[in-house]
Amino acid sequence: MTTAATPQKTAPHAYSGVFSLLSGHLAALDRCLHDQLSAFEPEIRAMADYCIDTSGKRIRPSLVFLSGWRGADVIQPELVKAATVVELVHLATLVHDDIMDEADVRRNRGTAAREYGPTAAVLLGDALFAHALNLATQFPTTEVCAAVSESTRRVCAGEIVQTLRRGSTNVSRADYQRIIDLKTAELFRVSCHLGARLAGFSPACVEAVGVFGRHLGIAYQMYDDLADFFGEEKRIGKTLGTDFASGKLTLPLFALMDRLSPADGAVLAEELTGRRPPQPALRLAQMHELGVFAAVAGAIDEEMAVAGAAIREQEPGPLLMNLLEVLRSQVGSLRR
Amino acid sequence: MTTAATPQKTAPHAYSGVFSLLSGHLAALDRCLHDQLSAFEPEIRAMADYCIDTSGKRIRPSLVFLSGWRGADVIQPELVKAATVVELVHLATLVHDDIMDEADVRRNRGTAAREYGPTAAVLLGDALFAHALNLATQFPTTEVCAAVSESTRRVCAGEIVQTLRRGSTNVSRADYQRIIDLKTAELFRVSCHLGARLAGFSPACVEAVGVFGRHLGIAYQMYDDLADFFGEEKRIGKTLGTDFASGKLTLPLFALMDRLSPADGAVLAEELTGRRPPQPALRLAQMHELGVFAAVAGAIDEEMAVAGAAIREQEPGPLLMNLLEVLRSQVGSLRR
Repeated sequence: MTTAATPQKTAPHAYSGVFSLLSGHLAALDRCLHDQLSAFEPEIRAMADYCIDTSGKRIRPSLVFLSGWRGADVIQPELVKAATVVELVHLATLVHDDIMDEADVRRNRGTAAREYGPTAAVLLGDALFAHALNLATQFPTTEVCAAVSESTRRVCAGEIVQTLRRGSTNVSRADYQRIIDLKTAELFRVSCHLGARLAGFSPACVEAVGVFGRHLGIAYQMYDDLADFFGEEKRIGKTLGTDFASGKLTLPLFALMDRLSPADGAVLAEELTGRRPPQPALRLAQMHELGVFAAVAGAIDEEMAVAGAAIREQEPGPLLMNLLEVLRSQVGSLRR
Repeated sequence: MTTAATPQKTAPHAYSGVFSLLSGHLAALDRCLHDQLSAFEPEIRAMADYCIDTSGKRIRPSLVFLSGWRGADVIQPELVKAATVVELVHLATLVHDDIMDEADVRRNRGTAAREYGPTAAVLLGDALFAHALNLATQFPTTEVCAAVSESTRRVCAGEIVQTLRRGSTNVSRADYQRIIDLKTAELFRVSCHLGARLAGFSPACVEAVGVFGRHLGIAYQMYDDLADFFGEEKRIGKTLGTDFASGKLTLPLFALMDRLSPADGAVLAEELTGRRPPQPALRLAQMHELGVFAAVAGAIDEEMAVAGAAIREQEPGPLLMNLLEVLRSQVGSLRR
């Protein structure tokens, strides 16, 4: 919203345009999402509508559109349909996540679990997911449905592994990497893959754009985990270290563990496994002192470098590069 | 296990053969179900295996096989695959049902929710369902995946409506009919439909067999609801009227309500909505006195008559008729 002409280090004006480019596409997405409501039984239509409206950032649909970009005026119906499919899958996983996290609020609204109760929310997530795959069968071949159903299974597997490891310190960095690869990067990857594929780009381009999506997804999840400790709302202290409190071992905690004395590391491990009361304020202060932010930001940069290298020579490359700038700026704003 | 030569009214030997006919097909199903495990991520394979083994009666796969019957020696791979898809969908819904019912035991084993916790069970059900639809994309066209995903959405919608109406007496018989049509009859219908379709029967036959499946499913759910009050285990008193206790308004309760004085009916309504302690022993005694069994058995007979009429002229008709005899005998054995 700034009109200042002061040059900014991260120059947001250079890439924020990427989202204004998408407005027509995202409007088409919203129309398509709402058109799906008529497929639901009348008794559950309002519930499905509620979930669609709580949506949020539409990151995955944006990846579909940008990966298959043919111009701001070229709205390809196949891409709108694929974007709707991945968003419905994402919304279904959010409905189930909120039950499991016992979350009451998402984006300033009650979660479906709170509105309708956990039982109805389990089923509502199932119905959203079933409809997403039904919509995917409207493509001429089984390809989209196969890709999306496989990704969904992988997303669930990632969430299961994370759930089973909660409150355990017997989790390696490799485990963490695998969990975020499955639970987050997979749907980013398939979104990019489908966008490029349905736009008719070459097999090499489709492959490259998929690699981009995967590493962007990994980087995005690392950023999200970093924001759990360094984010604006977190610094107010209210929800500081939600992951920490729930025993979720994420990259900032790995980086902190590496930097603590063995004795203090052992104490932190006991906090993470619930054998000692957690000390979030102390741990956050240590993160600041010991350079945890820079370490995680470095890991994010590495993933973004892989993502960027993959698409350097590809047709949708220049547009997709903007997303790396957006994420870089978001990471930078955490530090302020 | 009886070897007596006494002729029995329901002559089980006449139709029990239908299940022995299926042994080769069900063995092929089990192999195919187990083959699916390799598709799951290594970390969740054991959990998926656990769910497959707790399976049970394999009713829906049997419907697929019988609806597309070409002989006991003719095991059609397409039918095995479709049977695996519908069974995986069914198993996924059981995993979610058991979380919601807070059930600890199913078929003498711990439920997935008890074994792995409710959070992992939500995700495991999702993963099973995702894989079922992924397997459905192995058919040459999107038809199987479209049919199964639509049925799944309808099954979930039925369960949601039932959940929302629990503990309410503002449920009509029409609501009950719709709930069981969605939550049970739909998957029976699609199982029959796919069996006949994949076996290459005529469109008229496929349609007729689907109608059979639907009404068999309605009859089966009515039988299940009757068994909740009149079943063997229920008469021991341990789990008598589980539906009653959970405020689920089923056909036996509708039939009882019709037969009570307005005053006593009002008391029953208060029991069902939790405003009074339930009196299951009294209500069961009243059901016996007031002819509730016969009323529900009559409704089951009506559904079976519609089911039977649909397939009278069709090729898989004679074989499918046996299933009506099996159900008739099961209903009869409740009365003993």
